[in-house]
Amino acid sequence: MSEVELLESIEQSAQMDEKDRHYAKAGKALRELSHALKNILQMVGGATEVIDYAFQLKQMDKVEKSWPILSQNVKRMKKNLMDILDYTKKQNLEKCSCNLNEELKRVLNSLKSVAQVKKFKLQAQLDAGLPEVNIDPERIGLMTLNMLLNAIDQVPEEGGMVTIQTRYIASESQFEISVSDNGDPYTPEFQKQIFTPHETHKQRFSTGIGMMLAQQIANQHEGVISVHCSAGQNSLSAIIPIKD
Amino acid sequence: MSEVELLESIEQSAQMDEKDRHYAKAGKALRELSHALKNILQMVGGATEVIDYAFQLKQMDKVEKSWPILSQNVKRMKKNLMDILDYTKKQNLEKCSCNLNEELKRVLNSLKSVAQVKKFKLQAQLDAGLPEVNIDPERIGLMTLNMLLNAIDQVPEEGGMVTIQTRYIASESQFEISVSDNGDPYTPEFQKQIFTPHETHKQRFSTGIGMMLAQQIANQHEGVISVHCSAGQNSLSAIIPIKD
Repeated sequence: MSEVELLESIEQSAQMDEKDRHYAKAGKALRELSHALKNILQMVGGATEVIDYAFQLKQMDKVEKSWPILSQNVKRMKKNLMDILDYTKKQNLEKCSCNLNEELKRVLNSLKSVAQVKKFKLQAQLDAGLPEVNIDPERIGLMTLNMLLNAIDQVPEEGGMVTIQTRYIASESQFEISVSDNGDPYTPEFQKQIFTPHETHKQRFSTGIGMMLAQQIANQHEGVISVHCSAGQNSLSAIIPIKD
Repeated sequence: MSEVELLESIEQSAQMDEKDRHYAKAGKALRELSHALKNILQMVGGATEVIDYAFQLKQMDKVEKSWPILSQNVKRMKKNLMDILDYTKKQNLEKCSCNLNEELKRVLNSLKSVAQVKKFKLQAQLDAGLPEVNIDPERIGLMTLNMLLNAIDQVPEEGGMVTIQTRYIASESQFEISVSDNGDPYTPEFQKQIFTPHETHKQRFSTGIGMMLAQQIANQHEGVISVHCSAGQNSLSAIIPIKD
């Protein structure tokens, strides 16, 4: 590299600001998830072709048989793509004073169809003493949803249990949302990658970028999500300061 | 910003290498296309819910009526997402010596379903004198497909005409693939944005990143795509050097 080229390269690098670094992270995440996304797309595309053809032949039984595959994969793709688009966009917060427990009940409600597919017990211990908090309810809901989907993916096939808890930490002027599961203890490798984009298993509900997005939302609220493993219980804990 | 912070920031910037810049470009493209992608996802998600519900009620006529909306939008989403994933991945070339004209015939064949939806005349003038060329046929096919989809989107509703031409430039040891349409002359604004990610109209076949991907593929072959407008004809011309 000549001196001029070197100088140009340094200058170009210096021009990359905070936003560019965020976009680079998003682009890298897209690259990491590319294989998984392409797999889902192939499933969706394949099922669409099969159904297209079945309609042509008026084979309605075949349409009906193939439909659940398409429907399920469309939903997976939607969640995957929305997560990465949300992460990339890094939406500005729209804060308002709200009842966190009520917001979380809405999120728990939205998990009904997941509960139909994967049997597990969902336990909520919501702190009645929690005051109204000034947050973006949509975003905190999305953060919590991703924490829950992560936990749901970990529970054993039999006797699965996911617990969500809210807690008012008055002394620190904070609140905590913790989500725990009774699955196998997270491996050190999993603990390391959980907040970075990674491939997920076909049958999983969480997306490979869900926890990275959740961490982004916690950070936007000046909070942080951490992971804890102790005998028989894995948990994710989001600690968020209460601001006016 | 303190001196230490400033130094840290410069150091961080310097660490951003070529790859990071590519990822930043991809992330930014994803951001630009986010609105369009979310729109398609909403359409797909909405149609999926309608059909889900119709199946529950055994209303097969409603299933059949809603199917084309879903099917069409799944295809749009697939093409959109594949283009951006391809751009992000920036696949290594798998070159082989091949008959370009034959490869392009394969691409033209794949446009049958588009031709069914949008009536236009597709004219191919393939230079029989073109020797075998050492290219990645899949990638050059994808580049050409995106050039064609761009042209198809431009043609008028009546009397639309798209022309694809190959040309052996022996003196320069190059070949050219040009694609032209008889639509309204490209506006200066369109000419400026064509190789950058941009939103496209709902009914369009091209994706907002298709020509950016096409340019990437041309560049990977050490070639370049340029845009030309003259009275009554718009054209995109890819000039690629012939290498051993």
